[in-house]
Amino acid sequence: MDKFLRDHPSTPRTEAEKEKTINRLKRIEGQVRGIQKMVEEDRYCVDILVQISAIQSALKNVGFAVTERHINHCVSDAIKQGEGAETIEELMSVLKQFSK
Amino acid sequence: MDKFLRDHPSTPRTEAEKEKTINRLKRIEGQVRGIQKMVEEDRYCVDILVQISAIQSALKNVGFAVTERHINHCVSDAIKQGEGAETIEELMSVLKQFSK
Amino acid sequence: MDKFLRDHPSTPRTEAEKEKTINRLKRIEGQVRGIQKMVEEDRYCVDILVQISAIQSALKNVGFAVTERHINHCVSDAIKQGEGAETIEELMSVLKQFSK
Amino acid sequence: MDKFLRDHPSTPRTEAEKEKTINRLKRIEGQVRGIQKMVEEDRYCVDILVQISAIQSALKNVGFAVTERHINHCVSDAIKQGEGAETIEELMSVLKQFSK
Repeated sequence: MDKFLRDHPSTPRTEAEKEKTINRLKRIEGQVRGIQKMVEEDRYCVDILVQISAIQSALKNVGFAVTERHINHCVSDAIKQGEGAETIEELMSVLKQFSK
Repeated sequence: MDKFLRDHPSTPRTEAEKEKTINRLKRIEGQVRGIQKMVEEDRYCVDILVQISAIQSALKNVGFAVTERHINHCVSDAIKQGEGAETIEELMSVLKQFSK
Repeated sequence: MDKFLRDHPSTPRTEAEKEKTINRLKRIEGQVRGIQKMVEEDRYCVDILVQISAIQSALKNVGFAVTERHINHCVSDAIKQGEGAETIEELMSVLKQFSK
Repeated sequence: MDKFLRDHPSTPRTEAEKEKTINRLKRIEGQVRGIQKMVEEDRYCVDILVQISAIQSALKNVGFAVTERHINHCVSDAIKQGEGAETIEELMSVLKQFSK
């Protein structure tokens, strides 16, 4: 994925949408700091792994929300304009990257 | 995983080990903040997804490093003392959680 | 995912498409039988795990091919007819199930 | 993972263990054949994806069972004999491959 099709979504995110996503990312940022503290305090490995797993789950959910909006707007708009092929190829590429 | 077997690794992490892991987590924390900025700037969905995927990959690698150290110390020590069963069960449980 | 939107793809698969997918699944079927033989011969666990991992990778690729065709036909057709919402919701649901 | 440490588990699988694993693999083989039939009948993409996802889940569970036995026998035996390092490295390598 060397080149992206555009710089912005086909429909701009509303302020409410931005805020919701940013708040989820701030919680994730706090969780990552929490793990740093756990390492600092030499906490038990399995406790740390459970926390890492929780962050991965939270990140995945943010990824799904971004993907869903992407399909609902950018992909749908491209398809309606008869230009879906490249956008769908790009979508498949990012879905494959995600599943690694 | 309601109960953990202990509060600390069977062999304490050295300062060098702690620092290495914390530095990796700080980079991840910075990446999470970077995505917040991308959302703020209403950047293209696929760009954001690629970054989320990069963080997941980095987190997974931290998880593997913690798992490897856990097996090399806590699990190995328990096995040597003839008390591996519970620790291995706990390890399998966290591996399953990770693979979700 | 209790209820599916339809019984067939919006555009029927060609015989060539069917054959290609079925051939990939036949190879996977052969790989699964190969693992049965490995277990029968009491082969080393890690050899078996590597083969299971190869099958998972092959199955994932079949899943991606089915998903790509689904988006190119069923999802695109629904969007063009102004009825994308339900199909996209269904797509997200199956993508989430896949990532588990 | 170019080279495996041995040809067989350190403790041979019992006939009951073999049979249980082979039966699970036979069910998976049947599921793979079921998907071939679905493709032949040109069944809806999402129905097929749900079935592929079910097979992946079943395969993953076989993988976990093989991993658990591997840790309980081969890895534990190596650790008890003071030769855990190479076996643990091999285990980590296969866990990483699995998580892809």
